[in-house]
Amino acid sequence: MLKIPVHQVAGHHAGDRKLGPLVDDSGRFYKPLQSDDRGSNELSFYTSFSSNMKIPDHIRRFFPTFHGTQLLEASDGSGLLPHLVLQDLSMGHLNPSIMDIKIGSRTWPPQASEDYVAKCLKRDRESTSVPLGFRISGFQIYRTKETGFWKPNRQFFLSFSADDVRSALRKFVSSNGSADSDPDCAFASVVYGGSTGILAQLLELKAWFEDQTIFHFYSCSVLMTFEKELALEGRSSGAEIKLVDFAHVVEGRGVIDHNFLGGLCSLIKFISEILTTPDECYPPKSCLQDSEKSHFCSDDGVNE
Amino acid sequence: MLKIPVHQVAGHHAGDRKLGPLVDDSGRFYKPLQSDDRGSNELSFYTSFSSNMKIPDHIRRFFPTFHGTQLLEASDGSGLLPHLVLQDLSMGHLNPSIMDIKIGSRTWPPQASEDYVAKCLKRDRESTSVPLGFRISGFQIYRTKETGFWKPNRQFFLSFSADDVRSALRKFVSSNGSADSDPDCAFASVVYGGSTGILAQLLELKAWFEDQTIFHFYSCSVLMTFEKELALEGRSSGAEIKLVDFAHVVEGRGVIDHNFLGGLCSLIKFISEILTTPDECYPPKSCLQDSEKSHFCSDDGVNE
Repeated sequence: MLKIPVHQVAGHHAGDRKLGPLVDDSGRFYKPLQSDDRGSNELSFYTSFSSNMKIPDHIRRFFPTFHGTQLLEASDGSGLLPHLVLQDLSMGHLNPSIMDIKIGSRTWPPQASEDYVAKCLKRDRESTSVPLGFRISGFQIYRTKETGFWKPNRQFFLSFSADDVRSALRKFVSSNGSADSDPDCAFASVVYGGSTGILAQLLELKAWFEDQTIFHFYSCSVLMTFEKELALEGRSSGAEIKLVDFAHVVEGRGVIDHNFLGGLCSLIKFISEILTTPDECYPPKSCLQDSEKSHFCSDDGVNE
Repeated sequence: MLKIPVHQVAGHHAGDRKLGPLVDDSGRFYKPLQSDDRGSNELSFYTSFSSNMKIPDHIRRFFPTFHGTQLLEASDGSGLLPHLVLQDLSMGHLNPSIMDIKIGSRTWPPQASEDYVAKCLKRDRESTSVPLGFRISGFQIYRTKETGFWKPNRQFFLSFSADDVRSALRKFVSSNGSADSDPDCAFASVVYGGSTGILAQLLELKAWFEDQTIFHFYSCSVLMTFEKELALEGRSSGAEIKLVDFAHVVEGRGVIDHNFLGGLCSLIKFISEILTTPDECYPPKSCLQDSEKSHFCSDDGVNE
C-alpha cells in the first residue's frame, strides 16, 4: 500500500536501502523523522503551526496539512521508525510540473553552531542563495506524453548562476521546456500571472511575512506546481505554491523573518520580470547573450 | 573655516592626529577618501548615483547631495588628501536627535574575500545584524538646554539585544530620553507617524528597494533625524531619513538588494509596533519585563 513518491524533485529519496518519504493511495505523505534535532524540530513546527490560531486560513493553505505521526516500516528496511503524516501534495495531479526553491540568502539560524554555519555558508556562497536570496533545488518539467518529464539530477543545479535561474524560471512555463531549447514562456501568463496565479500567491505570502513574527523559516522551500495539460486545454493550470521542509524553523521572538522575506521579494522580482518582458521569451538567436545561449546546452549533468 | 562636525554619531571622528570628516559654514561635509578600495568605491558610487537618471527624485532626496571631490589638508595633519564633498546633513539643525542604523543582516558583499567575510560575519553575529537584520551603530538624543545630549560611546552599542533595540527606538522619541528612564514616547506620533514622518519615508524607500536592481548597499546606514524643540513647540519635527556610507555598495546586476530590503522591513516592523502599541510606552513598573527594567541602567558603557 505504501509507495515511493514519483513526483519528488529535491531532498532525500526513498529506495533500496535508502531512507526517504512514502505515500499511500489516500493522499497521505509519510516523512521519516530524522533522528537528530531536525526530526524533532520539524515535528515541533507542525505541532505548533497546526494549533496556532493566529495563522489566517489564506496563509494556512500554503502549508501541507499535518495529520500527526505514525510508526512505519522505514523505506531503508531498518525497522519501525516514526514518520510525520502529511498531506501528499502530488495527490490529484497527473503530470505536475514542479519546482523546489529554497528561500533565504542564509540557510542557518542565528544560534547555529560554528561548524553548522561554516557548512551552510559555504553552500550558500557557492549557490545563488547569497547573491539572489534563493536557490533552485530541483524541478521536473512535463513535456509530452511521449517524452515525459525533464528532471535534471542534483548535480545540475549546483553551479547555477543568476542567468541559469532566470532561464529555468522561463523554461518552467514554456511549452518546449527542455535543456537545449529557448523558452517560449507559452504558459507564463496562465501560471505566473492572473489573480490566482503564482505571483499573486507569492504576494499574499509576502504580505504575511512583512507582519508575522512567530516563526523564522531557515532552509525552507517554496514548491511551485502546475499542470501543463490543463493549461493546454485552456483550463485553469492548477498553479499553486506550498511551503515545505521545516527542519530548521525557529521561533521568531517578535522579529520578522527578514531573511525569508528578502529572498521571497527577490523571487517575486524574477517572476514579475517574466510577466513584464514577455518579448524576451521568443528571442531571435542574434539577440541572445552568449551566457544565455550556452548555459543549459553545455551542462553534462542533465539527466534526461 | 573647516571644523570638526559636532553631530556625528558613528564612524571615524576627526581629531588630534585622527583622520575624520570636516564641515564648513556653507553646508558642505568633507569626507576623507579612505586610501584602500573603500575610498574609490564610495567615490564610484556617488559618481554613478548622481548621474543615474533612473533614480526618482522622491528617492534621491534620501541621499546626501554630492559635489565632487576636493584636495584638503587632512584632519590628522598628514598633508593633502582627496575628500568627498557632500551635503552637510546637520546644516540647518540646532539640536538634532540622530540615530545611525546599519541596515542588512549581512554587511559583506557576495564576492568579498574569505578574511573579510569572516571579520564581518563575526561582528554581524555578535550584534543584532544577524537576528534583527539591522543594528544601531550610534545615536544622540537631545534632552534639554541644560543637560544637552545623551550620546553613548561606541562600546554601549556592542552588546545590544533585540530588547535594547526596542527600548532605544522608544527612547529616541521620548521627552525623557536617557539611560535610566522609562520611555514615554511623547514624540512617537509626530516623529515616526503621519504622512511625512519617518515610517512613511521608510515605506517609500522600501517600495523602491522592492524594484531597484541597480545597487546593493552593504554596510550602509539609515540616519534618522528630528528636532525635539520643534516638536515641543507643536511644529513639524523635521523628521527625516538619509542613507549614508557607501564604501561597500556594489552593482545590483539585475537582482534586488534582498539583504537591505529584509533589514529595512524588519526596522519598519519595529517602528510600526511603537505606533500601534503606544500603551507600552508608559509601562507601570510592575508590568515591565526584567530585561527591560535593567538593560539601560546596568550598562557601564554609558557616556553621558
